[in-house]
Amino acid sequence: MNKETATGVLAAVLTPIDENLSPDHTAFAAHCERLLASGCHGLSVFGTTGEANSLSVEERLAAFEALLERGVPAQTLLPGTGSCALTDTVRLSRAALGAGTAGVLVLPPFYYKGVGDDGLFRFFAEVVERVGDDRLRLYLYHIPQMTGIDLGLPLISRLIDAYPGVIAGTKDSSGDTERIVTLCKEFPNLSVLAGTEALLLETLRGGGEGCISATVNVTSRLARQVYDAHASGRRDEAQALQERLSALRASIETYPMIPALKALMAELARDEEWRNLRPPLSGLDEEQRKKLLAEVPLANLL
Amino acid sequence: MNKETATGVLAAVLTPIDENLSPDHTAFAAHCERLLASGCHGLSVFGTTGEANSLSVEERLAAFEALLERGVPAQTLLPGTGSCALTDTVRLSRAALGAGTAGVLVLPPFYYKGVGDDGLFRFFAEVVERVGDDRLRLYLYHIPQMTGIDLGLPLISRLIDAYPGVIAGTKDSSGDTERIVTLCKEFPNLSVLAGTEALLLETLRGGGEGCISATVNVTSRLARQVYDAHASGRRDEAQALQERLSALRASIETYPMIPALKALMAELARDEEWRNLRPPLSGLDEEQRKKLLAEVPLANLL
Repeated sequence: MNKETATGVLAAVLTPIDENLSPDHTAFAAHCERLLASGCHGLSVFGTTGEANSLSVEERLAAFEALLERGVPAQTLLPGTGSCALTDTVRLSRAALGAGTAGVLVLPPFYYKGVGDDGLFRFFAEVVERVGDDRLRLYLYHIPQMTGIDLGLPLISRLIDAYPGVIAGTKDSSGDTERIVTLCKEFPNLSVLAGTEALLLETLRGGGEGCISATVNVTSRLARQVYDAHASGRRDEAQALQERLSALRASIETYPMIPALKALMAELARDEEWRNLRPPLSGLDEEQRKKLLAEVPLANLL
Repeated sequence: MNKETATGVLAAVLTPIDENLSPDHTAFAAHCERLLASGCHGLSVFGTTGEANSLSVEERLAAFEALLERGVPAQTLLPGTGSCALTDTVRLSRAALGAGTAGVLVLPPFYYKGVGDDGLFRFFAEVVERVGDDRLRLYLYHIPQMTGIDLGLPLISRLIDAYPGVIAGTKDSSGDTERIVTLCKEFPNLSVLAGTEALLLETLRGGGEGCISATVNVTSRLARQVYDAHASGRRDEAQALQERLSALRASIETYPMIPALKALMAELARDEEWRNLRPPLSGLDEEQRKKLLAEVPLANLL
């Protein structure tokens, strides 16, 4: 992937789950199309927001193929292929690469804690070597609040040195603006994407490429406006739009994020199925849900 | 499983890994046989120590079947079947139950943090319902230092109430003696096994069933002596043996546990392959390894 492909506003796409707790392929593809039509440059499917680690590898592969069959363009996709098992990550990454996705977004293996940079380096190195294809574009997924793993700058530097071009970017969900700006400065050939659209403009101004965010499932239009205003140098307008976008994000993120987004999607798509989550995640209780819907007007979304 | 089956000294069995970073089935079965011959009542394969979450489901199933084919008795096995994905845990648990294992040891899904008891309850409930077999004996695996998930007593109580008999026990790797004793007292029908043989005697005295421990890969003989001395009411002897056992454990646990145990196994089995670990875990560096071997005389092991 070149920088252009994974640039801009990417949704960390929700996975609709049916009554049997399985991914609903039709609703999933429809949601991807909705997001692309609403301003998303790209779609990061099978990430944290997509409940990917709650799905088996077979379920991830089947849902991925279902998107392609239903016409979602592979080059718009940046699928998550991370897992605790090297062999699973290799298998998922090969499938993504074979289909022509923009790249793959890879979590560090997240079961063991405190494993050290040598073990993490070996994991990513084995992924690259085993996929064994120069077209691989690997995005490092930093989300320490879930993984308990710190992808520190020395490790990132070592990986870039070993696999220049292949280590193509990073999604940084630390929420740490200083880290994001430092990444942009230290690694000019790395595509840096913030894990929240609240940092979209700051990331772009710092030299980053955009954002991959859960809330973009419902804020894509406004997020795209921020991106476009920045890209055309309309500085004040970009700032004003970013403030609106950040306020919208803030109104959602006081709730458990994935359940809240699914509750909003159920309203936007007029489909109760959207309220399903696969365990261990649970839906909002009725009180929370009503409060959320009262606080976040649907007219402001998508 | 009845209490008798998962009683006593169980090793959290190491998985030997070959040069290709795949499980070595032959060495694995040989190690299981060695442990049973050295005093282990049972074998908890595919746990934290067994690097199970670093293996794909297919790799876990293949290694499991290889043990059975090589004659390791299914009823001595308490395989780990936990994973982040409900469907994987169900598949692994069904395979274990079908083979006639003593039960299954199930981690809570460990990717999402702070999910709450309702989501965790739903996860375990779905596992029980989907396995759909009254012979299921599910052991709850509490190891918050890896999972970031607290299996609290209210959740355990709710699960026992919903599935009495099926929720058969727990491996408690909290290292918290008070919690272990409380579990024994509050849930008299739950088999409570400590996650370290350092707490073996305290657990037995508190009404628990024994231990499932990483270091038992090399301390099984002495751990069994503690168990037997306690079982035959030789109180002072049990205490003296426990003190030796705890000291032995302590001499190992100052090192990264799984790499240290594999370094020791390489010496005991005279097979360098034992030093391999699948990323993200790494072997001890040469200095650590030499120090370990100097500090822990092999004659005291196995």
